[in-house]
Amino acid sequence: MFQSFDVTSNPQFGKARVEALRARFDGLGVDGFLVPRADEYQGEYVPASAERLAWLTGFTGSAGIVLVTRTQAVVFVDGRYTTQLVEQVDGEVFTGGDLVGEPPHKWIPANLPSGFRLGIDPWLHTGAEVRRLQKALAEKDGSLVLLEANPLDAIWDNRPAEPRGAVTIQGDSYAGVLAKDKIATIAAELQKKHLGAVLITDPSSVAWIFNIRGADVPHTPHPLARALVHADGSAEIFLSKHKTGIEAEAYLGQLATQSEPEEINPRLEALSKSGAHILVDPELTPYALSDVITQSGGQVVEGEDPAKLPRAIKNTVELNGSAAAHLQDGVAMVEFLCWLDQQHPGTVSEIDATKALESARAKVGERMQNPLKDISFDTISGAGEHGAVIHYRVTTVSDRKLNSGELFLLDSGAQYINGTTDITRTVAIGAVPEEQKRFFTLVLKGMIAISMARFPKGTRGCDLDPLARMALWKAGADYAHGTGHGVGSFLSVHEGPQRISRVSQQELLPGMILSNEPGYYRPGAFGIRIENLIYVREPESIEGGDIPMHSFETLTYVPIDKYLVLTELLTREELQWLDAYHAKTRDELMPLVEDAKVKAWLEKATEPFSR
Amino acid sequence: MFQSFDVTSNPQFGKARVEALRARFDGLGVDGFLVPRADEYQGEYVPASAERLAWLTGFTGSAGIVLVTRTQAVVFVDGRYTTQLVEQVDGEVFTGGDLVGEPPHKWIPANLPSGFRLGIDPWLHTGAEVRRLQKALAEKDGSLVLLEANPLDAIWDNRPAEPRGAVTIQGDSYAGVLAKDKIATIAAELQKKHLGAVLITDPSSVAWIFNIRGADVPHTPHPLARALVHADGSAEIFLSKHKTGIEAEAYLGQLATQSEPEEINPRLEALSKSGAHILVDPELTPYALSDVITQSGGQVVEGEDPAKLPRAIKNTVELNGSAAAHLQDGVAMVEFLCWLDQQHPGTVSEIDATKALESARAKVGERMQNPLKDISFDTISGAGEHGAVIHYRVTTVSDRKLNSGELFLLDSGAQYINGTTDITRTVAIGAVPEEQKRFFTLVLKGMIAISMARFPKGTRGCDLDPLARMALWKAGADYAHGTGHGVGSFLSVHEGPQRISRVSQQELLPGMILSNEPGYYRPGAFGIRIENLIYVREPESIEGGDIPMHSFETLTYVPIDKYLVLTELLTREELQWLDAYHAKTRDELMPLVEDAKVKAWLEKATEPFSR
Repeated sequence: MFQSFDVTSNPQFGKARVEALRARFDGLGVDGFLVPRADEYQGEYVPASAERLAWLTGFTGSAGIVLVTRTQAVVFVDGRYTTQLVEQVDGEVFTGGDLVGEPPHKWIPANLPSGFRLGIDPWLHTGAEVRRLQKALAEKDGSLVLLEANPLDAIWDNRPAEPRGAVTIQGDSYAGVLAKDKIATIAAELQKKHLGAVLITDPSSVAWIFNIRGADVPHTPHPLARALVHADGSAEIFLSKHKTGIEAEAYLGQLATQSEPEEINPRLEALSKSGAHILVDPELTPYALSDVITQSGGQVVEGEDPAKLPRAIKNTVELNGSAAAHLQDGVAMVEFLCWLDQQHPGTVSEIDATKALESARAKVGERMQNPLKDISFDTISGAGEHGAVIHYRVTTVSDRKLNSGELFLLDSGAQYINGTTDITRTVAIGAVPEEQKRFFTLVLKGMIAISMARFPKGTRGCDLDPLARMALWKAGADYAHGTGHGVGSFLSVHEGPQRISRVSQQELLPGMILSNEPGYYRPGAFGIRIENLIYVREPESIEGGDIPMHSFETLTYVPIDKYLVLTELLTREELQWLDAYHAKTRDELMPLVEDAKVKAWLEKATEPFSR
Repeated sequence: MFQSFDVTSNPQFGKARVEALRARFDGLGVDGFLVPRADEYQGEYVPASAERLAWLTGFTGSAGIVLVTRTQAVVFVDGRYTTQLVEQVDGEVFTGGDLVGEPPHKWIPANLPSGFRLGIDPWLHTGAEVRRLQKALAEKDGSLVLLEANPLDAIWDNRPAEPRGAVTIQGDSYAGVLAKDKIATIAAELQKKHLGAVLITDPSSVAWIFNIRGADVPHTPHPLARALVHADGSAEIFLSKHKTGIEAEAYLGQLATQSEPEEINPRLEALSKSGAHILVDPELTPYALSDVITQSGGQVVEGEDPAKLPRAIKNTVELNGSAAAHLQDGVAMVEFLCWLDQQHPGTVSEIDATKALESARAKVGERMQNPLKDISFDTISGAGEHGAVIHYRVTTVSDRKLNSGELFLLDSGAQYINGTTDITRTVAIGAVPEEQKRFFTLVLKGMIAISMARFPKGTRGCDLDPLARMALWKAGADYAHGTGHGVGSFLSVHEGPQRISRVSQQELLPGMILSNEPGYYRPGAFGIRIENLIYVREPESIEGGDIPMHSFETLTYVPIDKYLVLTELLTREELQWLDAYHAKTRDELMPLVEDAKVKAWLEKATEPFSR
């Protein structure tokens, strides 16, 4: 299993650990210390050795930060995690803060005494964050203290070792563009901008540029590594040799100089002494590193990570790989759904379902000789009221059966060498009330609106988001998350800059892969989400029209539970889309399915509503 | 007639006038001079005495600016006016610039020699503009020269006199809130922000605050005036006594001190000498005035005009007034459309139609004892290919007949004391091709999508704009303008900050009046636009839903040409909306229509598609 169902958190250690941290304040000359969830690589998933926030507080959410002063310990989390926080931390020690409405840099001026000295570990905060914190503290004549070493690490007994996941080469038949060509393109851009080098600190960017993958953190196959690309086309990669075998080293040797991660400081110092202009992404790079450049006489030029946009715009090889990965994943989903359909209501638990799905993925991966490398995130397997918890993680304590009369929401994904998948299906267990079918159909209308959309060049993610909500809004309903996120190519399942969301000003460009996942959640009762991955196509002319229009190509082909669709709520156009989607699902998957029972299930699940 | 059809522009004078202007450069110590379309009040419509851009160049569009150097004269206009510019100016003297893509502050650094001294009249440019120009010139070591007097005015023979339109009082039964209460609210805000006073320079804000109207500029019934509101609740209005009679003066005397417009400089000087903090909207206020404050020791505090948002959020009295004005305007439209229907194709010209419509409005105004005060903009009356010119103004030269087989686009509006209207209907003259019906229906789908939208609190104009385009996008079509603009209460027909447009981040708030006007234009062939005014309602619960949702209430009730609707392209929901809209149109207008022939026409035009 790529996922555990253990309760990993325990509120009982928080008190002693916070006290041990506070005992160090005097020695460090600080009045408080900030512990973010982020690690030295600012990733969404962090290795066990960097789970500092969870170790200190007990809170295991994927975003958050705790501010510990001599008298307070405030854990800032977003709306997804307010309930979880209460369950996971000791309420005598910690209070909750609002990570979105009043994050630390807004909370500080209103709540800390003047002259406050706040310590941080400059490896765990970006330059942009440091600026915000400094500004907030300055309002009260306070100051930010950049600590040499993280005081938490000194008191953390039995801290797990740093990961040493093996690095593999992502061959050209999956990457589509050679690493040397990517490096040359970046070097040419640096020359054009009269810059000496770019510091790449996002591990997914390093993985993409060098066409390598790793196994340092759960679910995201990038190695923890950094790199420098120089304007002359040479490159350096800071990647521990503990992770690279002979092949990977030989391969990387053609592209770059390989050094240990801790070599990056002296290298930046040396480079900066000659006054080099170095491109740094202030939203991604630890302040510790931009500070080295400035302190050594170099010039930090702030700008976007040059791998960010090209990584998001998948090439044909990546898109074809993703399409194949999605069909394979579709076969596993269909085998799982067929199996689930044969179980009696009340016999299968959320954990059982999660295990069965992973096992189907592994089995199909073996059969199709394209093994399941990992899941792309912890499966969200929620029956009944658990479906309404948007980021529900089932544990041995929360686990429950899928009972008759309930909806079961299953949001999962897989990592294959040719692509990353992410799919949500909501299915009925037995007969469910009409009201749940109604909301299922309204969510489906939103999902179809995005699937069918055509749009001109220049359209941004924020322009399409409302299309997915229109039908729900008319029913007095909405969902408290974006409609879609970017997805990587055998990389992170959450990848920027593309998004379909109210706030996304990023233009949608051909080749970008996105999720399309409207939902509806009734707390304490039921939850619905329907999710396909899609990608942006080149604009094409439309007969009788004037302007070529983009469209989305669907990647995910898995039946949508027809029992839950109230066809009278669909327009003719929407019904045609759904029938065509099911026809294509049948045509694509049937040849890949072996078992006769599964074939029969697929045949039935994809029958058209109308002939 | 409130509109002329004369060709008002003549390219032949440009050469001599530009030369006369250049002859003054040495004496003024400048190398160039900027002449904007804007007047001293930054209005959309300007009095004849401020038509400097048209006088100098011949260009009569509603937005533009000319930069005259010793060797060049570049007229910057937006996409709407590029064709018109070529027709109206002398191509030997003037070249065209791109007002949107490369306005003067962007054009200057790339095109002017270093050390360039650019003259401006600081009454015609806002503080924000002056900053942008100074920054642009500084890039090339140039400078901005603020001239004491406008050199154009010195060479402009027979310049029209400044307007002296009579000021009237907008009674409480139309305004809904007393001027003294508006002033008190603004004063309370100033106190809260520790400001001494606010300088109000937008004539529509002065009109709204004091509940007065004027007749200085065409189509917008505000008087050219400025005001100061002090934190202690006292106020000053700078409004020529040539415009106010005994009644208006007595009324204003209860609210403020009235002074001549030129008194504002000494008053600001006096106020500033004591170091007053004065609120100024940098996007509205002439630099000349903010400069007086700074030069005299006062403190300019930049912020939004405090009347802007409250003016946009109409109260119940204003909304009821607007609804009544729209029904009256609907009667006039119906009388006109019935008349037009009885004319033989090929006999009525665009000018004939414009005259007939204004005459219907005037006649109905007399009959209903609520006279037509003005039209709210020059009627856009375009047959056939003229319909594709988004801002078409018919002249005696361009005028043509409405021929059989063509679409006729009519965009017009009226000013009544109880409300400002703006309506577009596109009707068929004889039988038109199916393709034009298809696009008409697609435009209608967009218009209905906005009309039927429900949306949660916090929704912005940019969130709804795509709903109006979805159907057109699927057909490979779009329109190059926003979907809706704000509309005033017997004030400007273009009023901010509310808009339905790709760029509008303004939240839609209850009481805001907006237009809903998608379109489709095929250059050289035909144009379609369908426009109603609507306003934002308070959020209301929906049965079975969780969140109260806003909706739009429609103000405009006039039949939509059923002949042009291809019902097979509409969803059941859209068809129901259209039938209900026509039923309500019939119910509301029938009692107000007198003529039997018109009654019969209305009955037929509003028959449901389905029973």
